[in-house]
Amino acid sequence: MQFHLNGFRAGNPEILPAEGRETTGDTLPKKVDVLIVGSGPAGLTLAAQLSSFPDITTRLIEQKDGPMEKGQADGVSCRSMEMFEAFGFADRIKKEAYWVNETTFWKPDPARPEHIARNGRVQDVEDGLSEMPHVILNQARVHDMYLDFMRNSPSRLVPNYSCRLVDVSVDEDAGEYPVSVRIERTDPEHEGRIEHVRARYLVGCDGARSAVRKAIGRELRGDSANKAWGVMDILAVTDFPDIRQKTLIQSKDKGSVLIIPREGGYLVRIYVEMDKLAENERVRSKNITVENLISAAQQVFEPYSLDVKDVVWWSVYEIGQRLTDKFDDVPEDMVGSRLPHVFIAGDACHTHSPKAGQGMNVSMGDTFNLGWKLVSVLQGRCPPELLHSYSTERQAVAQALIDFDEEWARIISARPADGGAEDAPKFQKYFIEHGRYTAGVSVRYEPSLLTGPDTWQGLARGFEIGMRFHSAPVVRLADAKPMELGHTVKADTRWRLFAFAPDEDQAKPESRLAALCEFLERGEASPILKYTPDGADIDTVIDFRAVVPQDFRDVEITALPSLLRPQKGRFGLIDYEKAFCADRKAGADIYDMRGIDRANGCLVIVRPDQYVAHVLPLEAFDELCSFFERIMLPAGRKAAIA
Amino acid sequence: MQFHLNGFRAGNPEILPAEGRETTGDTLPKKVDVLIVGSGPAGLTLAAQLSSFPDITTRLIEQKDGPMEKGQADGVSCRSMEMFEAFGFADRIKKEAYWVNETTFWKPDPARPEHIARNGRVQDVEDGLSEMPHVILNQARVHDMYLDFMRNSPSRLVPNYSCRLVDVSVDEDAGEYPVSVRIERTDPEHEGRIEHVRARYLVGCDGARSAVRKAIGRELRGDSANKAWGVMDILAVTDFPDIRQKTLIQSKDKGSVLIIPREGGYLVRIYVEMDKLAENERVRSKNITVENLISAAQQVFEPYSLDVKDVVWWSVYEIGQRLTDKFDDVPEDMVGSRLPHVFIAGDACHTHSPKAGQGMNVSMGDTFNLGWKLVSVLQGRCPPELLHSYSTERQAVAQALIDFDEEWARIISARPADGGAEDAPKFQKYFIEHGRYTAGVSVRYEPSLLTGPDTWQGLARGFEIGMRFHSAPVVRLADAKPMELGHTVKADTRWRLFAFAPDEDQAKPESRLAALCEFLERGEASPILKYTPDGADIDTVIDFRAVVPQDFRDVEITALPSLLRPQKGRFGLIDYEKAFCADRKAGADIYDMRGIDRANGCLVIVRPDQYVAHVLPLEAFDELCSFFERIMLPAGRKAAIA
Ligand SMILES: Cc1cc2nc3c(=O)[nH]c(=O)nc-3n(C[C@H](O)[C@H](O)[C@H](O)COP(=O)(O)OP(=O)(O)OC[C@H]3O[C@@H](n4cnc5c(N)ncnc54)[C@H](O)[C@@H]3O)c2cc1C
Ligand SMILES: Cc1cc2nc3c(=O)[nH]c(=O)nc-3n(C[C@H](O)[C@H](O)[C@H](O)COP(=O)(O)OP(=O)(O)OC[C@H]3O[C@@H](n4cnc5c(N)ncnc54)[C@H](O)[C@@H]3O)c2cc1C
Repeated sequence: MQFHLNGFRAGNPEILPAEGRETTGDTLPKKVDVLIVGSGPAGLTLAAQLSSFPDITTRLIEQKDGPMEKGQADGVSCRSMEMFEAFGFADRIKKEAYWVNETTFWKPDPARPEHIARNGRVQDVEDGLSEMPHVILNQARVHDMYLDFMRNSPSRLVPNYSCRLVDVSVDEDAGEYPVSVRIERTDPEHEGRIEHVRARYLVGCDGARSAVRKAIGRELRGDSANKAWGVMDILAVTDFPDIRQKTLIQSKDKGSVLIIPREGGYLVRIYVEMDKLAENERVRSKNITVENLISAAQQVFEPYSLDVKDVVWWSVYEIGQRLTDKFDDVPEDMVGSRLPHVFIAGDACHTHSPKAGQGMNVSMGDTFNLGWKLVSVLQGRCPPELLHSYSTERQAVAQALIDFDEEWARIISARPADGGAEDAPKFQKYFIEHGRYTAGVSVRYEPSLLTGPDTWQGLARGFEIGMRFHSAPVVRLADAKPMELGHTVKADTRWRLFAFAPDEDQAKPESRLAALCEFLERGEASPILKYTPDGADIDTVIDFRAVVPQDFRDVEITALPSLLRPQKGRFGLIDYEKAFCADRKAGADIYDMRGIDRANGCLVIVRPDQYVAHVLPLEAFDELCSFFERIMLPAGRKAAIA
Repeated sequence: MQFHLNGFRAGNPEILPAEGRETTGDTLPKKVDVLIVGSGPAGLTLAAQLSSFPDITTRLIEQKDGPMEKGQADGVSCRSMEMFEAFGFADRIKKEAYWVNETTFWKPDPARPEHIARNGRVQDVEDGLSEMPHVILNQARVHDMYLDFMRNSPSRLVPNYSCRLVDVSVDEDAGEYPVSVRIERTDPEHEGRIEHVRARYLVGCDGARSAVRKAIGRELRGDSANKAWGVMDILAVTDFPDIRQKTLIQSKDKGSVLIIPREGGYLVRIYVEMDKLAENERVRSKNITVENLISAAQQVFEPYSLDVKDVVWWSVYEIGQRLTDKFDDVPEDMVGSRLPHVFIAGDACHTHSPKAGQGMNVSMGDTFNLGWKLVSVLQGRCPPELLHSYSTERQAVAQALIDFDEEWARIISARPADGGAEDAPKFQKYFIEHGRYTAGVSVRYEPSLLTGPDTWQGLARGFEIGMRFHSAPVVRLADAKPMELGHTVKADTRWRLFAFAPDEDQAKPESRLAALCEFLERGEASPILKYTPDGADIDTVIDFRAVVPQDFRDVEITALPSLLRPQKGRFGLIDYEKAFCADRKAGADIYDMRGIDRANGCLVIVRPDQYVAHVLPLEAFDELCSFFERIMLPAGRKAAIA
């Protein structure tokens, strides 16, 4: 954490000075830059991202009368934890959440098939997949983290509760605020009052029955499957030994159960496979009660007991894997001629089986992709055409997930094989293979303006272009602090350039690192100079950092190029957090871990949402310039919100 | 973190349900159980500890009008971090603080002695010394952590600011509230109002000029040294390469400087050796200004520049190593016949050179020692004679520290040797030797009622009796979570019994672990049964946990003795956090790391303040019983506060 740059501020450094142009709160302004509908994980991720920019007027409306307290999703993938780290609250979640370390599998005991027996166990997150654990936490608490972030942000953003979006219209010719919405107040004091708000951008994070989706004429498509799962969060006493492990139980003929231990050491979530539903039959019509769920679970648990003491929350789900074809209001054939103004994200455009634990994670991933793009366009850093990439990138991710989920649903509901216990069931193999998928780290954006070709991928095999920047340990040169390089990437919408210096004397003025720094700091074509507004700190738009292969004791920070010791803020203080060394402890050298070419080094361009945009040779100045030229506007162009 | 035991509670689990008998706040009650004077580190550690017990009426008075914002101490030792972990805020401090990883040493450049040159560097905390880092953070932020803890505690304790203790009298015959104090309100609304409060116990945490100390007729003794050091927290620009390392610079004839980098990446503290003072001369008389400090530092820095942009805080110190002979109101010769009612802690009874960074740490250590004793006595768990041990134990610690500090002060002010750069100066050697000392982990309480003899120390060489319980990694059996065993010790005033099972089948009913559990859970003499109130959870007073040497995949939790799966709370839910396995990763096996006898296992008794009280054979039931008999009262004896 860096703070006190412009002078000492007492108190919690996470509470930033308020800077809002107006206070947020009870009344809705007539015009906003971004209107977000829905305070689920998708809406809150976006609101948190935007709340750091008080020059952008953002409002989040939510039809419910206050924050969520329990229920819904609870799985937080490694990838989401990496994103939470960028928002600064991964450590709080780590402390509070249940950590998934193992998954165990139970199936009918071959000796006595009406009883279950443990059939296998696997480590839940493969070693080295992420520096973050896979955790389980009440969705409400994830919401709380975002709400705290927003409350502490310069804009002090708080949701407007009891505000229901009623309808939306977009008039491309209506000038700067083309989106008009009608909002109904539903709290007793304002009941029935209708407010009219105009927005530059509207983002529908309003869940599976999204009104925004309907307003832009899009539909969720896919089979609404005829299988129902019950879910309950309970406090229970059992003699089942794996009740504190993530566990999948398949009974002989009583169905399947998925156990998800929860935060706090006592609470547990149980998903219960319910009767198959007839074609077009809905769960509602079956009058399922929590007692049904409990007794179904008890039958699966045989011979173990399950004595439910308290039901905290329960629900019944039908597995419905559905998706819209596009996540914005521009028809496919008009992408070249129209700009998007309305977006949908999260469950509003895709729904998933809860069992793979993806709903919340993918929804947050959507708006983390959209957030920096909206900020960059509104601030005039990028042309509005950039916004097309949101639907392109995220629709493909959702499609891949639906495909994955369907397969997963088929496999876990397959009856256990008749073979012996040694015969590892299909789902277990599948589970191991797909660990990376469920961890959320296998998302790969296709080559595009934002994602370079793999021409130089060989310079850093472990930083795969289009995939998330896979953090690795380094030692910060100035203070010898061992840390994760990926944790320098904050949710601040900045681009990162990570230069990995080759094996050579970095202090030589003709070193390759020095040449790159010289170009970036003083070169006429330097993208850093080109895109950074006059008078702003040098790392305001593009944050340059370097890693050298030497031990930190063998390099003097003052011998490195001055770009690695930039002077910032009103006092021109030196930022000492730009230069890093490989950690020479066994197995911890980032050059080895990420396959970095020691002879040549490389430059890794990382997007504001932590994805690797490109890998380039250190001296590929032209390619570097043209990469940014395609997506950015020179500083000084009038921002939309100026 | 464990929560939801008695049902789900929405929101932040660190905010505990309020349970106070009365609200704390503006008015002072006429009678309190414990009155604490002074909201420095000592007073806040004690107040935080007591705030968890709403049945104990605690008040903290502070003459200042609000919480501290900056200045004073900033060094947080590994040992203090271990204690913060027990309070639950070590992770916040880790995130916010500067981490001391290296210390570098500079002395006159042999080639050009009027310039300084780097002469050596050492890793600041020896590998394996503690699982916690040595960090630096504004004392005010440490205060804030405690204030948050108190605010979130069941008693919702907040300090009473603008309340100055005026005088104290103790009347042994005055019944249950023998201490009478007069308090002056100093805020504008109440200015001059005097309040009379009676207390069972008064704790003077009121700093070096303690009024409480004077009231009980004790004096700080020792030489007030004739050397002055200036200290300033600054924002500066420099080309000195080690400005983000803890650094000791000795110039040829311009004196010495100690650099302490600070939180946030920019702030730095600089201690400057000032002119020697004449005998009995005080700093005040020298009219030292911050400009003097800056220019003195600049001279030491030669040939490096030091351009101070902003001075956040500064002060001038004289090194005065002083100590009182006893930390309570009972004269040495009356220990057998009188009980203590007034205690002093922290700077009130000992003062230290700021440079070893001990003042804040030792002060917190004092009241962490006292806190559980007061709670135990007030709740009737221990006889009041226990309170004598506070002065005995902590006075010895302070004396050892004074001795250490004096040596340290002498050494760092010694002129650099005339020898070459290879000739490592004395202080550097001293520094390495004393790393454990400054980390706060070398405190050792002498054998006493609370500290057993070393008869069976050989069963666990690494858990040294009288020293702090040195945490090591384990894997929690129920959920395979890799964690630190020491982190199960919370600041909740409970005793811990850690049983380390020998290499044998733990599931056998005749295993040594099973025999111990049988005795503890059902034995007639079981100390757990004896000291736990009827109807309370089995781990309310003595928290029993076990570690087995097997891999977690090779042990079934349901095969372990039932004491390791206790049922608790209103639903009788099973607590799954009592059984642990050795971590079989290379170098992480607690049996190897702490020298535990694999053939015999052992039982380690850990005090509520994290110190090892005893190491016993697993079958030493008699010794176990008699250890607790000497210091505890059977449950059911009327508590002082009942
Ligand atoms: C009842 C329920 C149970 C679930 N259970 C599970 C589970 O067991 N496991 C699992 O993995 N996932 C579960 N999910 C799914 C998971 O919660 C979602 O995948 C995730 O929350 C998606 O996030 P989101 O932000 O896209 O949408 P949501 O979290 O659905 O948020 C949408 C928000 O928009 C608000 N909103 C909707 N319409 C309007 C409007 N017109 N005006 C204003 N506000 C509006 C809603 O009140 C809601 O707060 C459940 C979802 C629901 C609704
Ligand atoms: C000005 C100053 C500068 C310091 N600088 C450094 C430094 O640079 N480095 C370092 O390591 N250490 C420094 N210290 C020492 C370090 O802060 C102490 O060692 C540490 O705070 C001791 O904690 P304590 O709780 O015992 O006492 P203190 O922190 O001194 O707290 C005592 C509290 O009691 C209050 N109090 C006093 N009398 C009364 C009364 N009659 N009624 C009510 N309240 C009362 C005081 O206002 C104060 O808040 C400094 C201390 C001071 C006072």
